[in-house]
Amino acid sequence: MAAFGRHKAQRLARPDGSRRGGLDERAAPVVRLLNGRARFCTTSSCAGRIVLAQGSTADAGIQKQNCTWLLVTHETCDKGDVMTALEKATGDVVLKFEPFVLHVQCQELQDAQLLHSVAVDSGFRNSGITVGRGGKIMMAVRSTHCLEVPLCHKGKLMVSEEYIEFLIHVANQKMEENIKRINRFYERLESALNAAVSANSSSSQETGKNRSVYVHRRKRKTMQEQGVRTSPEDHNAESEPQDGAESSLAIFAEIMIAD
Amino acid sequence: MAAFGRHKAQRLARPDGSRRGGLDERAAPVVRLLNGRARFCTTSSCAGRIVLAQGSTADAGIQKQNCTWLLVTHETCDKGDVMTALEKATGDVVLKFEPFVLHVQCQELQDAQLLHSVAVDSGFRNSGITVGRGGKIMMAVRSTHCLEVPLCHKGKLMVSEEYIEFLIHVANQKMEENIKRINRFYERLESALNAAVSANSSSSQETGKNRSVYVHRRKRKTMQEQGVRTSPEDHNAESEPQDGAESSLAIFAEIMIAD
Repeated sequence: MAAFGRHKAQRLARPDGSRRGGLDERAAPVVRLLNGRARFCTTSSCAGRIVLAQGSTADAGIQKQNCTWLLVTHETCDKGDVMTALEKATGDVVLKFEPFVLHVQCQELQDAQLLHSVAVDSGFRNSGITVGRGGKIMMAVRSTHCLEVPLCHKGKLMVSEEYIEFLIHVANQKMEENIKRINRFYERLESALNAAVSANSSSSQETGKNRSVYVHRRKRKTMQEQGVRTSPEDHNAESEPQDGAESSLAIFAEIMIAD
Repeated sequence: MAAFGRHKAQRLARPDGSRRGGLDERAAPVVRLLNGRARFCTTSSCAGRIVLAQGSTADAGIQKQNCTWLLVTHETCDKGDVMTALEKATGDVVLKFEPFVLHVQCQELQDAQLLHSVAVDSGFRNSGITVGRGGKIMMAVRSTHCLEVPLCHKGKLMVSEEYIEFLIHVANQKMEENIKRINRFYERLESALNAAVSANSSSSQETGKNRSVYVHRRKRKTMQEQGVRTSPEDHNAESEPQDGAESSLAIFAEIMIAD
């Protein structure tokens, strides 16, 4: 516990290494909520963004190592701004919508599990845990909810203004959904962490172990309800940590060992 | 060990639940390699695909619960096929490139860690571990390498044929890169698993514990080399399980406890 605490203090004292130089407004509440708890330490975050990314190579399909942003916004965007930015295009330009991303170092695996459940419940279905060398435990909150649309090739705009308007409408819808998910995540995380604290204090007199219960609300659909079922359970399906029993509510009990 | 083995046997005996009804050819070698080892059990896979997905709602930005495929291919595609498929469009149609996805149940956490390292080394940087209720350990192999391009709105094609040709070129490049990554993953996985077996047999006479060493080849770039550094370490950056020490080679030692 002490080692984690020292590491956390060092980590949070570092200057912000991001291009923006500070926390995104919409990510800030979640980040502060987590960093206010001893067992968590956020390492990076982004509230989500719409970006016009210009690459230096002609291979738009290959991930660009060196790219510049013609436009970036953490809110919805409008056509005027996008068209203005596209006028500066000289290479291959891609419009991307990238949803909320958060990396959190966790003291113990059960902390990562709690966070993982809340993230998945909130719609961040590509979230996952990493256990690194020396036992360092990270939880990455991720979503599949994206857009990646090539717009310019060697500086030439390949689509009409009408398409740009349509695309922006789609991107803005994704941004709005993203914002809802972040809010949902914050609320559920706050509940889960408070429930863990309550269980901790009420049972601490009984035994050396503390029990916390996170009510894992996940609606599982039958194959019939889901319509066309793709392989493997749809690229957008979360990895399924449990057996395929269909129930609308599952109690996810966690044992938290008292420090 | 016995319980995991029984569960695996039951799992592998189930009929294939995917729409395709069987393994994708390119995913098959990796799947067979893993299922040939007692400690792993694959639960779902997709070699990667280019899809024209038609949704039933007007909200192209919202994930579709019920969608149909106008076209799906696990190889590169050509413009003729895509144009023909688009003629059948009646709703909102999106072209997606979805890379290789694999879900693997692992007997123990260190098995998932080994798989995770190999996956990340091979380019599947959004891979992650899930530890579910009852201790079920899943590793999801995932990538950020995607395309999602709205093409039709209410049945109307919003882009030119020239754009479709350009887009297919980009999608095909991503598919080719995807195939290279799968092959890289197979080779590295095979090496890592063989190294684990060798270490297991050579040290089994010494103590009750077995040591296996996976050479974790990861090139870490300095901020200067990486050009524009986005927040948080770029949406495409893997979640960083280790401290930011820069080294081109890190030994990732794993202790595998003898069963």
